[in-house]
Order: sequence, then structure tokens, then C-alpha cells
Amino acid sequence: MRQRLSVETYTKGVLAGDRSTLSRAITVMESSLPEDRKLAGAILQNILPYTGNSVRIGITGVPGVGKSTFIEAFGSYLTSLGKRVAVLAVDPSSKQSGGSILGDKTRMEKLARDPDAYIRPSATNLSLGGVARHTREAILLCEAARYDIVLVETVGVGQSETLVKGMTDFFLLLMLSGAGDELQGIKKGIMEMVDAVAVNKADNGNEPAVTNAVAEYRQALHLFPETASKVPVQVVACSALENTGMELIWNLISDYFAQTTKSGFLEQNRQFQRIEWLREQIRQSLEDRFYENEWVQKHIASADEAVRNGEKLPEDAAGELIEMFLRSGNAFNG
Amino acid sequence: MRQRLSVETYTKGVLAGDRSTLSRAITVMESSLPEDRKLAGAILQNILPYTGNSVRIGITGVPGVGKSTFIEAFGSYLTSLGKRVAVLAVDPSSKQSGGSILGDKTRMEKLARDPDAYIRPSATNLSLGGVARHTREAILLCEAARYDIVLVETVGVGQSETLVKGMTDFFLLLMLSGAGDELQGIKKGIMEMVDAVAVNKADNGNEPAVTNAVAEYRQALHLFPETASKVPVQVVACSALENTGMELIWNLISDYFAQTTKSGFLEQNRQFQRIEWLREQIRQSLEDRFYENEWVQKHIASADEAVRNGEKLPEDAAGELIEMFLRSGNAFNG
Repeated sequence: MRQRLSVETYTKGVLAGDRSTLSRAITVMESSLPEDRKLAGAILQNILPYTGNSVRIGITGVPGVGKSTFIEAFGSYLTSLGKRVAVLAVDPSSKQSGGSILGDKTRMEKLARDPDAYIRPSATNLSLGGVARHTREAILLCEAARYDIVLVETVGVGQSETLVKGMTDFFLLLMLSGAGDELQGIKKGIMEMVDAVAVNKADNGNEPAVTNAVAEYRQALHLFPETASKVPVQVVACSALENTGMELIWNLISDYFAQTTKSGFLEQNRQFQRIEWLREQIRQSLEDRFYENEWVQKHIASADEAVRNGEKLPEDAAGELIEMFLRSGNAFNG
Repeated sequence: MRQRLSVETYTKGVLAGDRSTLSRAITVMESSLPEDRKLAGAILQNILPYTGNSVRIGITGVPGVGKSTFIEAFGSYLTSLGKRVAVLAVDPSSKQSGGSILGDKTRMEKLARDPDAYIRPSATNLSLGGVARHTREAILLCEAARYDIVLVETVGVGQSETLVKGMTDFFLLLMLSGAGDELQGIKKGIMEMVDAVAVNKADNGNEPAVTNAVAEYRQALHLFPETASKVPVQVVACSALENTGMELIWNLISDYFAQTTKSGFLEQNRQFQRIEWLREQIRQSLEDRFYENEWVQKHIASADEAVRNGEKLPEDAAGELIEMFLRSGNAFNG
């Protein structure tokens, strides 16, 4: 393992916007080793007052929709406006495929060389809960490093959309024309999460189909209930390949940000997200403490055995183990 | 609330196969009141030796595929063979729609009147975790009441398929012809869960389309990795409306059961499911104990407040609350 720096070095480097220190700090966040978690907590505590100042944008869409090309085009447009842009990826599937680490950067060549952009590929070998925690922490670090816009890309596998929705201010769905939403493998419920739909690949003679798709999605969205933000969901066309629609998309995000700042929804939503994060953290820490407990470790095998054989009900076995765990609390942790 | 019976009355009634007592016992399982949970535990403890003897079949498919008609036809076919059939429904969405209680029975008129069939509509107002627990418990009760086959129907919303897959021996996916799997809103990953696909509505001139669809699904399934059971996934045509294909489907399930009994997979899988149930139960009970704890209840509001305002990190707040909870363990529970 690469050597860790001091809390002060991480803090100063991140606050100075140093990309190399930022990367090393995010690596600390990705670790679940107890000493790294302690270090992570100390760094986060220091930078916490400097967080919360970015526009957090979640971006999703099925494979093939052109997410990387879009982020390259959109990110470059934003840096051309003088914005500093960070790109994070949430890809719980990379555990299996393992191919995303290099993938992200090579697919965003131009943005990767842009001094005002920071691209952090997906961490591998993390549970969904692990991905959730460290991505939230990475957002805070990027904000402390004065990135104005944080783009969180998700591959849309399993529950990753819900996860990204829960840590961003604005959720953008990329779609293709020439296919119903179901045909694109879009999971039920995702349309209810989005703040905008961008129909990509309005290029190479595909423009009329995209125009039709935009009209269809607009129509379809009328059937959905009003969003919590009360800002109507926008549907626009774009071409990541030809760099069109980027200004339009940024304008609608800016408008959304202005409206929800004024209405108070933006801050309400962030407060809600922090509480949700706390609840998840409690759930995770309770389980960690339980399974690390000496008494539990000593007795869980026989409990498992009785349940496995159908001799004991899971609820009874769980109850006994938890009683044991709680009684041992003072002895081991007090 | 309707008055509860004694543990003995529930036990005897269920073991005697009395449908009214079975229903009342399942109602006890659906309750989360502490006294009902205690009663539920006592009943389950009594009936546990009489469980495990059914064929547990999960059935899923998008709305419109004809699930109710299929279950009516398939269930009636099974009772005609002298089998006793129980039908349970997992519908986490019924919380919102609220319409499933009457729905299930009226949509299965014939089966509902069959003395060898028992239909239990979805419980309403339950969390996904609550649905999971009580459905597993209801399966055990149905087995103790000597039902040979338990059909667990799921509407396929959210995670309900994974849940039903985790409590059944055999998972059947109902499909329609004339549409790619994506077009039917089938969630990614579901094809990897199924043991058989039945293409329904092979009737009214639709037969050629169904034959094509069967061939296509067979082709597509070649691309999937071998199932854990090592039994190849079967694809068949059926018409719930015209009662065709029922024998075929039952035969392939019987074959599956015979093969996996012989290979040991059936029992291995059930053991695995019991351990998963235990893990879920531990997670749920830990959270319940935490949030019910007096110290936690006294201090969580201020912790929430500090997290909500962004003054404190969720991980730190969670850590402090859990420390408090564990230290208070002996005083309150010891």
C-alpha cells in the first residue's frame, strides 16, 4: 500500500486544489481499513466547512447511449465557461468487469488533459454501500478543492441510479431516439427520478428521429406526477459527437439551480440526503460492530448451523445473537 | 383488532389443514406488534418440524402477461392431479395501489372455490423487509398445513423478484410473444434468475408468434452462463386462457425437482436461503433495537440536526450514537 500523508498535508493539498493530493485523499476514502477510516474522518472534518458549493449533477443512461462522449463534450463546454469540473463514476459492476479504471480516462481524452477538469474513475472491488459512502465523500473533497460542478456518472446497474439520485442536486437521463423507453432497458421508476432527459446522437442524419423522440418523451412526461422540486422536467436534443445542445443543457440546469435555490428545495433536498446518509451509516456501522464482536464471532457458526439445518428459526437465532452482542457491549467496548 | 387465539389453537388448526386458522395464523405473521411477533415465534417453533415438504415455485412477469389467469389454470391443473396448492402474493406496490386484496381472489374465481387450493392475497402497508419475512413465514405455515405446492406470485416491482427468488426452489418467468424481452419492461438481470420461461397467450391465432418467441428465447438463453442448479433453463409455450401447456410446465418443474434433489442442489439452495434470511433478520433486528433504545431516542434528534445542517459528518454522528447505544446495552437490556 502506498504510504499515507498526514491529515494536514491532505487537508492543505485538497484546499489548494492540488489534483494529486485530491486523488490520494479519495483513495483514503475508498479504503475500509480502520486506520484509513480514521484518517478519512479527520480529513473530512477539516474540509467540511469548505463543502457544499458545487452543482452536483447525476448522469445516467444505458450502455451505448454515449455517456462518456457526452461527459467529454459537456465537461469541456463547462470548462470553456471558466468552470472547474470534477467527474466521478459510480459503477458497482466494475467489480466484475474490472475494465473501467482505464476506460473512463481513455474515453475522455480531451477532458482528461484539461487543467480545469478532474476525472476520477470508478473504484473497484467495493460493495454498493462502500461505493455510496466513498462517492459522497469524494464529492465533498472535490468541493473543498473548489470544483464548481461535480458530474457523477452511473452505469445504471442495479440500484446505482437511486444511489446517485440520492447524492446529487440534478439528475440527467441520456436517451437515444428510435426506441421506446422500455426498449432501451430503462428500469421502471427511473423516469420519476429525472430532472431532465437529453436525447443524444442528434447527428449524422438522425436529427428527425431525435426530434420525434423528444416530442414523445415530452408527451410521456405529462403522465407523470409533478416532481418534488416542482420544476417541470425538460426534454432536449443533443449531439455529444458534434457538440450541440451543451449550452441548452447547462442553461436548463442553471435555471433549475436558480429556481430551487429560491424556493428552498435545493437546501431541503440536501438536508434530506444527509439524513438518509446518516441512516445508511447507522445501518452499516451496526452490522460492522455486530460481526466484529468477539462473542458473535464465537457463536455465529453454531447459530448458522442450526438455521441452515432448519432446526432453528432465523428470527430466534438472530434474537439470541443480538442479545449476546448487546450484553457483551460493556465488557468489550465500555 | 381481531382477537388472537392461543398458540395451541393456531398450531393444531394449521397442522389439521384448517384454512380459516391458517389465514388467521398468517395474519399474526403479518403483524409487527411485539406481542404478535412473540406469538408468531411460538407458532412457528411448533410447526417447524412439519415444514419443508412442498415444492416452492416463484412466478413473475410484467403486468398484462396474464399471471392471475395463469395461476388459476396452473393451480387448477395441479389440484386435478390431487395436489394441494397454496398461492401467496408478494406485492410491495400494494401499499400504494391498495387494490390487490380483493383483486387476487376475484381474478382467480375458480381456484378460490377449489377445496384443495388456498389463496392468500398480498398484505398491504408493509415494507419490503416486512413482506419478505412474513411471506417466508407464510410458506412454512402452508407447508405445515400440508400444501404440496406453494406458488409465490410477484408483480415484479423494485426488488420483489430477488426476494421471491430467495425463498423459492423454482423461478418461472411468464412472457409474451411479439416483443423483445426489453420491450416487456423486463429488468436487467432477471433472465439470470429464472429456471424456466413460459410464453403465454398461445391462443387466438397468436400461436405462430409464440412459437417464434419460444425459439428466440431459447436462442438468447444460450448466451447466459449455466445456472447454479446446472439444470438447463427451459422455454415453453402455454395458454392460460385455453389451459394448454400446464402439463408440460408441471413436468419440467417435477423434473427439475427430481434432478436437484438427486444432485443435492435443492437442499443446498434452501440452506443458503435460510442463512440469507438469518442475515436479513440480524440486520433488521439490530436496527429495531437501535431505534427503540431510550438513549438513542433521546439523542437522535440533535444528531440529525447537526448532520442536516452539515455541521457533523454522518459517519461521526452514527459512530457516537452507536457508542451510546452499545454502552446503554447493559443498563437497559441486561
